[in-house]
Amino acid sequence: MTDVFGLSHKDAGSVTGQTRHEQVVFCSDERSGLRAIIAIHNTALGPALGGTRFYPYESEQAALADVLNLSRAMAYKNALAGLDLGGGKAVIIGDPAADKSEALLRAYGRFVQSLGGRYFTACDVGTYSEDMDVVARESSYVTGRTLAHGGAGDSSILTAYGVFQGMRAAAEHSWGSPSLRGRRVGVEGVGKVGHRLVDHLVEDGAEVVVCDVSERAVERLVGRHPQVRVVADRLELTASALDVYAPCALGGALDDDTVARLSATVVCGGANNQLGHPGVEKQLADRGILYAPDYVVNAGGVIQVADEIEGFNMDRARAKATQIYDTTLKIFSSAAEDGVPPAVAADRLAERRMSEVGRIRGIWLGH
Amino acid sequence: MTDVFGLSHKDAGSVTGQTRHEQVVFCSDERSGLRAIIAIHNTALGPALGGTRFYPYESEQAALADVLNLSRAMAYKNALAGLDLGGGKAVIIGDPAADKSEALLRAYGRFVQSLGGRYFTACDVGTYSEDMDVVARESSYVTGRTLAHGGAGDSSILTAYGVFQGMRAAAEHSWGSPSLRGRRVGVEGVGKVGHRLVDHLVEDGAEVVVCDVSERAVERLVGRHPQVRVVADRLELTASALDVYAPCALGGALDDDTVARLSATVVCGGANNQLGHPGVEKQLADRGILYAPDYVVNAGGVIQVADEIEGFNMDRARAKATQIYDTTLKIFSSAAEDGVPPAVAADRLAERRMSEVGRIRGIWLGH
Repeated sequence: MTDVFGLSHKDAGSVTGQTRHEQVVFCSDERSGLRAIIAIHNTALGPALGGTRFYPYESEQAALADVLNLSRAMAYKNALAGLDLGGGKAVIIGDPAADKSEALLRAYGRFVQSLGGRYFTACDVGTYSEDMDVVARESSYVTGRTLAHGGAGDSSILTAYGVFQGMRAAAEHSWGSPSLRGRRVGVEGVGKVGHRLVDHLVEDGAEVVVCDVSERAVERLVGRHPQVRVVADRLELTASALDVYAPCALGGALDDDTVARLSATVVCGGANNQLGHPGVEKQLADRGILYAPDYVVNAGGVIQVADEIEGFNMDRARAKATQIYDTTLKIFSSAAEDGVPPAVAADRLAERRMSEVGRIRGIWLGH
Repeated sequence: MTDVFGLSHKDAGSVTGQTRHEQVVFCSDERSGLRAIIAIHNTALGPALGGTRFYPYESEQAALADVLNLSRAMAYKNALAGLDLGGGKAVIIGDPAADKSEALLRAYGRFVQSLGGRYFTACDVGTYSEDMDVVARESSYVTGRTLAHGGAGDSSILTAYGVFQGMRAAAEHSWGSPSLRGRRVGVEGVGKVGHRLVDHLVEDGAEVVVCDVSERAVERLVGRHPQVRVVADRLELTASALDVYAPCALGGALDDDTVARLSATVVCGGANNQLGHPGVEKQLADRGILYAPDYVVNAGGVIQVADEIEGFNMDRARAKATQIYDTTLKIFSSAAEDGVPPAVAADRLAERRMSEVGRIRGIWLGH
């Protein structure tokens, strides 16, 4: 049994662990087939924001486990992105190819609306800006919309830009200069985020090595940047002589074998959930590898869509994403001071902001 | 695993069966210790209304099972009470004696408020009008408040009155006159609802037999009505020569043994969930016993508190509760026409109202 509250329960630990979620909302609309779970980890800093994942989960338990984890991660990401937003996420149980319909998306929109702005949604796996436009026909609390509807458009633009800022901070911390000129950077995955990261790296004068399971993605990249070296797969990439390893594909890139194999002394990429299991952050630190926490450096995307709440302005959003450089530097120095891995330092900083800034709402203002 | 959506799942049937709940909201506030589940069965007829049960459930699953069942029952009750309200219910997991606090009740109130009026709360087991006044300091969607705060006060007044109306309808259907004069009525349980029902019965000229596990309750009743006969226990009561049996104590009064034992030809009482298991309604019908469905005749209480939404007016609420007479008669004739037990006829009428009246909101009005 999945235990939403994380009550003491024999087999509940795997889902909620020690986290307590403020609100978890199961939504159902029989006619349209909607089955969704919206999870709000906390609203200490403001309304919870996070995307809607549309995925054919094997069970309600699997969907719940995912949304609880993802919403917690959003709380930490939004906190360190400096946003006035709490952490939330939603999942729709179903096959987006078969089950997505106007009625289902609009029924979902009504449930988002029913929370009165405590949760803002956005795109995630299986949902696109066009879908958010449909959801927004029933709700005022939707980001990630199309440019035509005042949305932020493709959020991988600032995701990649933010990862680049994080990498510059890692360079500054490691080598005394933020420039990547002459550094060899291995980029795993050159899809939406990875290929844009390569653009920044090439412009900055880095030597770039890439791999991708999609030949088309590799061809497109080499067409733009003929100087980029292509290797066969992630095994060859991570075994290469690298200064920086940038995982931009699936989660779990940093497993025991990969960490043992790396010659890179910096890891900084756009993928989510890069740490394969708890303790990997310590293995990286023990090997002298500087790890820029994934959720800190890939926050450019949420920064981009969150800007829609004020009325989207790309310059303002980019300026905010530029601050990922400062935040990442701060995490590295805080980690060094406290003698902990950067991933731990990042969590502590996020928790401190939620706790210290969250409580000021207790100061009475009349509403 | 309890499956909120009632997805196909080996052991989920016992909880949700075939019902799909529109929204189930898990709410948690770590500091105050609040752990609550709000269940909205459906909002076809309007905002969901139902009480908040504060109970030391053994597990979250047990709490979830209870709130899913109770909210479904409220949907049917509210529908047949003629209210413009859907079915909802909430549970707070904890020991009210030990865990109830201002902070907890107010944290709960914020979650009720967060639903923007889709759910109105009220008292239930473990919560009192004074508690609702505290919840209302954080939420506009609270009924069951104290008279001093514009509330409906003790809702057992109209609960008992409604049960009496249902019993008059059963008398009319069975004997051609709504009067209980000279009828022998056995009232099991003379607490909040039962003793008020006895008041109505005595006034109408019925011969009343009672029992109660509380000697004090019995003494108080006999003090008011010396002519009432007292028997030792429910076994003696249900074995007595009765025209009407009125269960007003715990749920499950109508088990196989009790049904076999009854000489009464009418069952009509204030208790919830009188049918001990599915199929008992058929056994009653087979024995020629007219069963007035519990949730139909005990709806006076929710009618009383729901009236607070308009600004409480006892005369208006009583007039509405008087309609329980017509509704119960209609159920009996509909049951006779369709050749089904009254409990089945009641469910069908409730479902028809939810479906037929619910859909008219599809007529566009500009908001």
